[in-house]
Amino acid sequence: MTKKEKIIVIGSNSFSGASFVNYVLNENPQATVIGISRSVENNDIFLPYKKNNSGRFTFHCLDLNIHLNEVIAVIKDFGPDYIVNFSAQGMVGQSWENPEQWFRTNCIALMNLANALKKEKYLRRFVQISSPEVYGSCQGVIKEGAQLRPSTPYAASKAAGDLSLLPFFKNFDFPLVYTRATNVYGPHQALYRIIPKSIVSIKNSQKIPLHGGGVAVKSFIHIRDVCVATLAVARNGENGEVYHISPDNGNVSIKDVVRLICEKLGKNFESCVENMDERLGQDAAYIIDSTKIRKKLGWEPTISFERGLNEVISWVEENFDEILKCPRDYAHKP
Amino acid sequence: MTKKEKIIVIGSNSFSGASFVNYVLNENPQATVIGISRSVENNDIFLPYKKNNSGRFTFHCLDLNIHLNEVIAVIKDFGPDYIVNFSAQGMVGQSWENPEQWFRTNCIALMNLANALKKEKYLRRFVQISSPEVYGSCQGVIKEGAQLRPSTPYAASKAAGDLSLLPFFKNFDFPLVYTRATNVYGPHQALYRIIPKSIVSIKNSQKIPLHGGGVAVKSFIHIRDVCVATLAVARNGENGEVYHISPDNGNVSIKDVVRLICEKLGKNFESCVENMDERLGQDAAYIIDSTKIRKKLGWEPTISFERGLNEVISWVEENFDEILKCPRDYAHKP
Repeated sequence: MTKKEKIIVIGSNSFSGASFVNYVLNENPQATVIGISRSVENNDIFLPYKKNNSGRFTFHCLDLNIHLNEVIAVIKDFGPDYIVNFSAQGMVGQSWENPEQWFRTNCIALMNLANALKKEKYLRRFVQISSPEVYGSCQGVIKEGAQLRPSTPYAASKAAGDLSLLPFFKNFDFPLVYTRATNVYGPHQALYRIIPKSIVSIKNSQKIPLHGGGVAVKSFIHIRDVCVATLAVARNGENGEVYHISPDNGNVSIKDVVRLICEKLGKNFESCVENMDERLGQDAAYIIDSTKIRKKLGWEPTISFERGLNEVISWVEENFDEILKCPRDYAHKP
Repeated sequence: MTKKEKIIVIGSNSFSGASFVNYVLNENPQATVIGISRSVENNDIFLPYKKNNSGRFTFHCLDLNIHLNEVIAVIKDFGPDYIVNFSAQGMVGQSWENPEQWFRTNCIALMNLANALKKEKYLRRFVQISSPEVYGSCQGVIKEGAQLRPSTPYAASKAAGDLSLLPFFKNFDFPLVYTRATNVYGPHQALYRIIPKSIVSIKNSQKIPLHGGGVAVKSFIHIRDVCVATLAVARNGENGEVYHISPDNGNVSIKDVVRLICEKLGKNFESCVENMDERLGQDAAYIIDSTKIRKKLGWEPTISFERGLNEVISWVEENFDEILKCPRDYAHKP
């Protein structure tokens, strides 16, 4: 692939966004990428693209809620082939406290962005990063056409955002596609997420909190597998369609993930954890079916959970001094 | 029915809201009703409850977007059995111009209201008046579980609002029910709606504009039938459920409705109409199935379209002098 591609990544400071920037720069030496995030660039240890000193990445610190016009100006000036939107208020538990902020970012700001871009001819794809949480807690395996039954304000705001884009696709051929990936993980992930949090806690001899005893079942997929899928959808997805991204057989309880990490680090599980109340609206499981992207776009995951966990442990160990200087709890910004 | 019932109607100045107030006051002599709307009360000809001089109705001029705390205070002070929310930015065509306003009212203000009420114990039902437009243009007959595929910002904002309420039902047993009725009509409807607009235009010798030649198929149901259904859902609906409200066989094109009105008024159809461009995102048809409310709640429509149209014509004729003093076009308020 030596084709020139211009890509804008909104939410480039997020784990998924930064990983996608890095993946694209490596995958296509002809790609140029603009990253947009509302925060200044994070510590380098969270931004894998920082080691890719290609000169093909530019960062703009802009907030969709506040600087929509500036964001639009950056986009129109660059004329990207693809826009991939990772930006979101992403925390689930916190979304109960002031849900309006979640709806402002995840629905209204998004809708305003798409509305401003609905007639831009250079744009070949707008990839909206959605979430399986829009389905709520489901029995059985969920395909892309399943009913939206969100259980939390976070999930409802994501579902609302997804629906807010459809009129632009239907009436202006806005080149919209959605991805919904199960729980991503990998090196460079924020330290408040369960996998890096568990590793760092163990190395610091701190207890790992298990909400609801850690019985919630997740389906972890390595961020590099998700990046491959996301670029495939940007390049070859069908407009108006949703694509699920999920591992081959990754359903595992939080408790078992933490147990595995304890084993890898030679620690006793019981002495490393403390049980907490379950989070409000925590869905019991999301088992999503990704047959569509496998059949239509030839994607499949390649990184086993075992190997991925080892990568995260290595990343923590190699950067431990720097990690200790970083805040380890989630800090909400309205 | 002599049971005391306390009901709050939000959006009581709307056609559906005002008609529901009137219906409830008549149906249950023990009912007390508070109406809330952001506009001062409309001209009496649009408020059928004005003739019901019962002293059981009180009006508060409050805007959910601005006076949420005051609305909550009114609700908590009254302690209603049912809240029925008709308030919405309701215009479809206009929603393209500044969609954010539609999302603020139809999603965020609604979500904030439900969030504030999610633990109120007196509340037996919160009836959210939704719309079949959330489904977009559908082939075949639509049942309540169909996918949400909105075609316009109005429809997307209604769908977003519907989803925003689900987390409160799922986590707090918030007594939420939805209704989705096909196109309502009847005496007292706003003059910019197609049926009263056609009658008034003919009587004024003005052309009736037919968007897209009037080929869009609608399914008109008399507002009194809808009021009966809405109260049945408030009283006996199952929480978390959607109820469709539709006529027996009311599918008719706009063109044929206008033709029928012309015939009733002794006018030639062709000379009364002028064709206009179709509205953006106009769905070709909504054919919704209302088997559920018929089977579960024993509801059925009783007013034929023929009889209903005669009622509207009589209403226009009886109030024609007053109608001529009223604005006849839709005026958007942010």
